Amino acid sequence: MKPVRLDLAGIYPALITPFAADGGVSVANMKHNIGLYNKTALRGYVVLGSTGESVLLRSKEMDEILAAVKESAAAGKALIAGTGAESTAETIERTKRAAALGYDVALVKTPYYYKPSYNAQVLIAHYRRVADESPIPVMLYSVPIFTGLALEAPEIAAMAEHPNIIGIKDSSGNVQRVSETIAQTPSEFQVLVGSAPTVYPCLAIGARGAILALASALPEKCASLYQLVRDRQLDAARELQVVLLRASKRIVSEMGIAGIKHVMDLRGYRGGNPRLPLQPLTAEQKTRLAAFLPTVEQAEMAQADRH
Amino acid sequence: MKPVRLDLAGIYPALITPFAADGGVSVANMKHNIGLYNKTALRGYVVLGSTGESVLLRSKEMDEILAAVKESAAAGKALIAGTGAESTAETIERTKRAAALGYDVALVKTPYYYKPSYNAQVLIAHYRRVADESPIPVMLYSVPIFTGLALEAPEIAAMAEHPNIIGIKDSSGNVQRVSETIAQTPSEFQVLVGSAPTVYPCLAIGARGAILALASALPEKCASLYQLVRDRQLDAARELQVVLLRASKRIVSEMGIAGIKHVMDLRGYRGGNPRLPLQPLTAEQKTRLAAFLPTVEQAEMAQADRH
Amino acid sequence: MKPVRLDLAGIYPALITPFAADGGVSVANMKHNIGLYNKTALRGYVVLGSTGESVLLRSKEMDEILAAVKESAAAGKALIAGTGAESTAETIERTKRAAALGYDVALVKTPYYYKPSYNAQVLIAHYRRVADESPIPVMLYSVPIFTGLALEAPEIAAMAEHPNIIGIKDSSGNVQRVSETIAQTPSEFQVLVGSAPTVYPCLAIGARGAILALASALPEKCASLYQLVRDRQLDAARELQVVLLRASKRIVSEMGIAGIKHVMDLRGYRGGNPRLPLQPLTAEQKTRLAAFLPTVEQAEMAQADRH
Amino acid sequence: MKPVRLDLAGIYPALITPFAADGGVSVANMKHNIGLYNKTALRGYVVLGSTGESVLLRSKEMDEILAAVKESAAAGKALIAGTGAESTAETIERTKRAAALGYDVALVKTPYYYKPSYNAQVLIAHYRRVADESPIPVMLYSVPIFTGLALEAPEIAAMAEHPNIIGIKDSSGNVQRVSETIAQTPSEFQVLVGSAPTVYPCLAIGARGAILALASALPEKCASLYQLVRDRQLDAARELQVVLLRASKRIVSEMGIAGIKHVMDLRGYRGGNPRLPLQPLTAEQKTRLAAFLPTVEQAEMAQADRH
Repeated sequence: MKPVRLDLAGIYPALITPFAADGGVSVANMKHNIGLYNKTALRGYVVLGSTGESVLLRSKEMDEILAAVKESAAAGKALIAGTGAESTAETIERTKRAAALGYDVALVKTPYYYKPSYNAQVLIAHYRRVADESPIPVMLYSVPIFTGLALEAPEIAAMAEHPNIIGIKDSSGNVQRVSETIAQTPSEFQVLVGSAPTVYPCLAIGARGAILALASALPEKCASLYQLVRDRQLDAARELQVVLLRASKRIVSEMGIAGIKHVMDLRGYRGGNPRLPLQPLTAEQKTRLAAFLPTVEQAEMAQADRH
Repeated sequence: MKPVRLDLAGIYPALITPFAADGGVSVANMKHNIGLYNKTALRGYVVLGSTGESVLLRSKEMDEILAAVKESAAAGKALIAGTGAESTAETIERTKRAAALGYDVALVKTPYYYKPSYNAQVLIAHYRRVADESPIPVMLYSVPIFTGLALEAPEIAAMAEHPNIIGIKDSSGNVQRVSETIAQTPSEFQVLVGSAPTVYPCLAIGARGAILALASALPEKCASLYQLVRDRQLDAARELQVVLLRASKRIVSEMGIAGIKHVMDLRGYRGGNPRLPLQPLTAEQKTRLAAFLPTVEQAEMAQADRH
Repeated sequence: MKPVRLDLAGIYPALITPFAADGGVSVANMKHNIGLYNKTALRGYVVLGSTGESVLLRSKEMDEILAAVKESAAAGKALIAGTGAESTAETIERTKRAAALGYDVALVKTPYYYKPSYNAQVLIAHYRRVADESPIPVMLYSVPIFTGLALEAPEIAAMAEHPNIIGIKDSSGNVQRVSETIAQTPSEFQVLVGSAPTVYPCLAIGARGAILALASALPEKCASLYQLVRDRQLDAARELQVVLLRASKRIVSEMGIAGIKHVMDLRGYRGGNPRLPLQPLTAEQKTRLAAFLPTVEQAEMAQADRH
Repeated sequence: MKPVRLDLAGIYPALITPFAADGGVSVANMKHNIGLYNKTALRGYVVLGSTGESVLLRSKEMDEILAAVKESAAAGKALIAGTGAESTAETIERTKRAAALGYDVALVKTPYYYKPSYNAQVLIAHYRRVADESPIPVMLYSVPIFTGLALEAPEIAAMAEHPNIIGIKDSSGNVQRVSETIAQTPSEFQVLVGSAPTVYPCLAIGARGAILALASALPEKCASLYQLVRDRQLDAARELQVVLLRASKRIVSEMGIAGIKHVMDLRGYRGGNPRLPLQPLTAEQKTRLAAFLPTVEQAEMAQADRH
């Protein structure tokens, strides 16, 4: 395995974007959250991803959030900025802004609106153009649950030949596809996954880490799963994966970003409500989450006891 | 059937956005195209829809295009502006700008990125908020081929109760869904369809008209189909529908926006290339279109002969 | 339009198979139903289709049902037997049995279990082999809601070249696909559709008729829709289509074969319960159907009044 | 973990059914194959599954095949018979025949034709009825690639409460679903998977073994992967999984049952051609397989070298 330019192995939260009372982004709350995350084993931060409501933000708000995280992140935390837009030109612009603000990596989601036209050839051309222009390494981002478009191993392998494309975040949750990607790309191409229910099996087959919405709400537990796999504590890893599978289902799948934000509120972070059209949780949903959360935390203690 | 505020019955082109040599939008070319369309039986114009590459445009460019069409459109042409953005707030802003620029109707595509969260209730809340704030009537826009999200009859019926929501553009091509929508909404709710291959069957079951990418390239033929149905020339309508079905497949389905633009170039309009990541046609594709186009035009003459 | 060997234009019920108290097929009840259908404008009968629970019957039961319908059908009713099995050899055997029993046409559904292997080439080879061996004309049958496999226009067109393949029953409900099939096959190739919600638009674009589960329960109304279209009573046809759309949704889509059979019970036919694993209706479902049925019959009277 | 009645842990081939020159099943070739398999570490045999072309066989042929395998299987090999039919009654009959012939377990695939009607409640009722009547333990079988219907964890958990339902073969390849099933069922409920590309990750999260079409052609390698995981040789397991992923794609996904049978022919087994409508391989496909096979066997040697 060749040495990599920037070793991204580990767990990252897909950061939420907190909003202030006036509806704008809250730099203060973002910094508060980062302050807490800095004390954990998280490998770094992913800003302006899908969980960050990036598609609901304005250009100026994106810059404010990027700056806030850069300022408050502890030394050594890898900083990854979501910079993908529908147009190639705007993607390049956002990528350059992120680089100028000090980010280490640009995470570029696929364009997706004209999906019948976006065949492998078009996607490869897009990513190569972006990678050519980007001052910082580019990471591909495939998130079919939101985009309806998945990157497959053959085109990923073609893109991995570009010296400035260093990895992928694959959020499909499709373990076979992740396997194929790892098998068809060079060992220095870094595959991170974006689906909490399959982190352990993906690490088992060679993924380097994960970028998880769930890690915004439960960072310790997500980081702990990674460490258990590194330590080959396989039974414990399997059990913790079940806990995270349940948590992901109850919080992320059933309640979306509003659910993640509310669990953050319950755990000392500042989540708040999402931006419209995303709706805040109902009182009933909040009650369910409040009842569910201790079952996750007790599971965490059971883990801690055992080791 | 109650009288409608604004009768939208007829055929509209989903206008393409022409770009200048420097990559910016070309107001001059847009005005040229509108000048030609003004001489046809098209009912009006739809600006900044999916065919207009709206997701690839900047805010300032959108305003330029809206202004150009408004200035050059002949009197009596209904003007419909695509104003849907992912966030509710930005959708409202765009809608107000379109109203201020003199547009008659705002065509609001569904938000779609967070589709697992966008259940009927969320979509209804979004559209009601937009309709409350909009100075002009709102038309729903469901285009699952691009968004991965389809509006279904029950939620459309709920939205149709809002006095400022006057209709829908349904681009699903699903004739049963169009039927259900018509059956479940009041007669003054105007259903336009957005799929050229099923215009005639949709008109047969009660759609008021169509907004078609194909009508940017072949406006006369599309308008002619509408007129044949109005005149109950059913055999001729059926035959012309077959011609448009083939043309839609060869031009729109196989080659996308670049295909439409190139046929426009061949027919005296100004199409040009699409914006990246959309790719221009290859020489081979252009040759195929050039060979195909006369078969459509001869078909048109056969129609003309018969009536 | 060339003359066809056997003109199938019109409406057919996809017949249900009634069961006796001992669980076997009830020849008596089948003959009772045919006796009633003989008095209607139905063009003929389709036996052992999907609605006939053919996949739940044994070989001997199939023969009993085929014989019962043949014996009781009025002169002039076209008799179509479902003979498709997964294997080519068994399909041919069933087809020969149906021919020997006096059936006019074999309706051969696609094989479907090994769908990843059943590409167009494999399907064409299968159908050609069956058509070569069949003593009676063969009709293709595409029913993706049950099989997960749809025949598309290009392969249908290839099969239509075989002199013993005379048409298709397309149950996809996809009006564009039906249009493409009609456009790409010779005029003597007969397209019947199998989806009640889109019968009228499909007739408008050139389908010859329909084979409908709903016509087992509501034969007069289905036959009436056909007649209205023939008579170019377009407004009445559109209204009746809405009635049938609603009925199809409430009876067929929501309750399946058990629903169709129960409405038959309510209307003087002998439906009874389906075979396991299909479940009989609950009391609550029966109550809902009993309340719904008069709304369909009143709709029928409104139609009758008008014309 | 409670002791299980019958420990099924390990690897099974989903046996192919060889045909004789006259088109009937070849008992002799089946016994030849079993003779070779008896020398491997395979845990047992699965007869009349999807790979066994069971949907293309007649009742008498099924019995011949069941008897042939029973007679030739070495002592200690677990014998699993595919007995699922569309109707509940026929499934019970087949299950009783398999029990009478000495089989240990009945593998019952879901009914699937009337999939819109087969909700969780209907499926649970079907399986409970079969399990009530079966003289031998029942194993659920979910194979959505062929049936279009997948069993999900909640209904599997409900069925797992039945004392005669002891496990599931899940061929979905969906690792998250397998995880959820394991998490929601008692520890004595045995989950085997049926997708070669994800065997290792599924074993990692707690699956007991696998039933694989690929194991008919490459039994040693499949058994070896299982053993590596048992021995916690994780790096070697990961590498061998990649080899099997490639082999599964090239042989099973691209060429189906005909591909498996041909690789068997190349390796001293008796595969032959599948039954129509399945087509034999073309000469070109055979050449490709012959070129591919050594790359798998060399990979195997590399594994052997390392340990």
